[in-house]
Amino acid sequence: MSRFLTASKAQLTEYVPGEQPKRGEFIKLNTNENPFPPSAEAVKGVGDVAAQLNIYNDTKCTRLTEVFADYHGVDSDCVIFSNGSDEILAFCYLAYCDMQNGLLYPEITYGFYEVFSRLFEVNGAEVPLCDDFTINIKDYFGCNRTVLIANPNAPTGIALSLDEIEQIIINNPNNIVIIDEAYIAFGGDSAMPLTKKYDNLIVVGTFSKARSMAGARLGYAVANSELIADLNRIKFSFNPYNVNAMTQYLGAVSIERDDYFKQCVNEIVSVRDWFVCEIAKLGFRTLPSLANFVFTTHDSLSGKEVYNHLRNDKILVRYFDGEKVKDFVRISIGTKSDMVAVVESLSKML
Amino acid sequence: MSRFLTASKAQLTEYVPGEQPKRGEFIKLNTNENPFPPSAEAVKGVGDVAAQLNIYNDTKCTRLTEVFADYHGVDSDCVIFSNGSDEILAFCYLAYCDMQNGLLYPEITYGFYEVFSRLFEVNGAEVPLCDDFTINIKDYFGCNRTVLIANPNAPTGIALSLDEIEQIIINNPNNIVIIDEAYIAFGGDSAMPLTKKYDNLIVVGTFSKARSMAGARLGYAVANSELIADLNRIKFSFNPYNVNAMTQYLGAVSIERDDYFKQCVNEIVSVRDWFVCEIAKLGFRTLPSLANFVFTTHDSLSGKEVYNHLRNDKILVRYFDGEKVKDFVRISIGTKSDMVAVVESLSKML
Repeated sequence: MSRFLTASKAQLTEYVPGEQPKRGEFIKLNTNENPFPPSAEAVKGVGDVAAQLNIYNDTKCTRLTEVFADYHGVDSDCVIFSNGSDEILAFCYLAYCDMQNGLLYPEITYGFYEVFSRLFEVNGAEVPLCDDFTINIKDYFGCNRTVLIANPNAPTGIALSLDEIEQIIINNPNNIVIIDEAYIAFGGDSAMPLTKKYDNLIVVGTFSKARSMAGARLGYAVANSELIADLNRIKFSFNPYNVNAMTQYLGAVSIERDDYFKQCVNEIVSVRDWFVCEIAKLGFRTLPSLANFVFTTHDSLSGKEVYNHLRNDKILVRYFDGEKVKDFVRISIGTKSDMVAVVESLSKML
Repeated sequence: MSRFLTASKAQLTEYVPGEQPKRGEFIKLNTNENPFPPSAEAVKGVGDVAAQLNIYNDTKCTRLTEVFADYHGVDSDCVIFSNGSDEILAFCYLAYCDMQNGLLYPEITYGFYEVFSRLFEVNGAEVPLCDDFTINIKDYFGCNRTVLIANPNAPTGIALSLDEIEQIIINNPNNIVIIDEAYIAFGGDSAMPLTKKYDNLIVVGTFSKARSMAGARLGYAVANSELIADLNRIKFSFNPYNVNAMTQYLGAVSIERDDYFKQCVNEIVSVRDWFVCEIAKLGFRTLPSLANFVFTTHDSLSGKEVYNHLRNDKILVRYFDGEKVKDFVRISIGTKSDMVAVVESLSKML
């Protein structure tokens, strides 16, 4: 830290991303990546885009926006893209929150929500989950703050129903409600259609997980056009060229190759459900996940023990060192053979 | 604008990027792009990177950092990369500026400096240029604010010498001095070596211009390791995965293919100097540019007239509608044949 850092930033504790080991060193199940690569068609065309990178990318992501809006049945002016979904969440904080206008999010959720509260000096309050790790929606009614909920939640994988989401929106008519749908493709119901009905809803998503584009960085928000205009005001005051040309191209092809996308997602969901059954036979209790990861615990083992054992077997999962979650590990769903290896390793342990 | 936008953001006027017309519609000399594409070698390899995008990119940009640090003769922990240089400038604002800790920059300069001051609610003050559009360095001595200067400056193209930069640094021992070297490769002297001598200097740069990567988004800062640690603290609190894997790869190859880089830059400099001579014969007075653009004026024509005339001839340049610059146009340097077309069009006009 230098002597020039402002007082508030000197207090900042940054986010710690999951470990990124050398390729091939581990079976990597620690950052909820998709085990399948982008479609061959997308990969094949990216060189042509790279050959024109001397020219600036399209600040409006025109083609990507059209393809996306058409696919999801929303208007083009109800969509904005960003350099990963973290960036669009940051834009939401900048647009709607300050010391007077705070946020509310679950105590156990994506760690970045709290980091953003500190970075932007916003009053971010946490609501404990229920004992079964579910969200009690009534905790968020009439809270007079921006509500931010990951659905499905992370690291639990538990999803709210669309009815429950709608109740939160209806009961916060004068606040923004942000639903972060990073993992929605793996079984949850998207709140995107509700953006046509409510002017206080922002649905955030990412191409990192279901669309196999973690390393390309592509996030989005869908909301009514006034909210999207707000977010564009922030984007054009921060980084108008935020989504590079190659990623815009890859995102559009991903949507166009819907068969490949669905095939990958279906395989992950199927492997997840198989995996949960297999580890249940070993005594693991797994929260009901609609994501591409599971959060699981064993009565006779701590999370740290499971993490360390798997790590010794060259399998990397994620362990969080908090009081309420220390008995769990979060395991991303890889290929069937990845998960067979996990089951075998856990069997050896017990 | 929605009813939810915070009061301060409702005041925000965003940056207006230069027009991006359809490819081939215009000779495009309005956003200081490089007329030459990235090297064929870089383009050829990008598909292999794209095929692995399901895995997250390296938050530390390890390979790119090593190649860059080696090339510039600085330590790896004195370098940070960003999603274009606008993003690293934003990180500097977040780290070092607030309502108490203001900024100082030239009145006529890159328009984003003022936009950031508004976005981050920082007290940003402007210093008029001299009548000849040069910077009087003494205006910045002991100013008790972060100093932010583009060198060469935009849209003038005029550069300060390294001695002058050093005088500004020495005379601001308790403030950060940020030198934005977006255009330094076209003839100016980089202040990068001074980062080893002074703990209050941050040199910012971009791969958008000289390295033909505008559409890929890659910016950087070089400074002593404490300042880089500050900026990493902001980056890891904002968007740890900010530079996608393809761009990290392309950036490293660009540095490794130094022959191609120098060949492109030398050609642009040579065409610039030829172009300035040619339009001088037509009566244009051009500020002495060390950038890949020129800022030029004609006694009998307004900037708007020149802009409109060129536009009718399918040549796009940039015109700024401010009192002190309205007699000028900014013309990016394209290929020789692009600039021959500009000279011919201007000849017809006169």
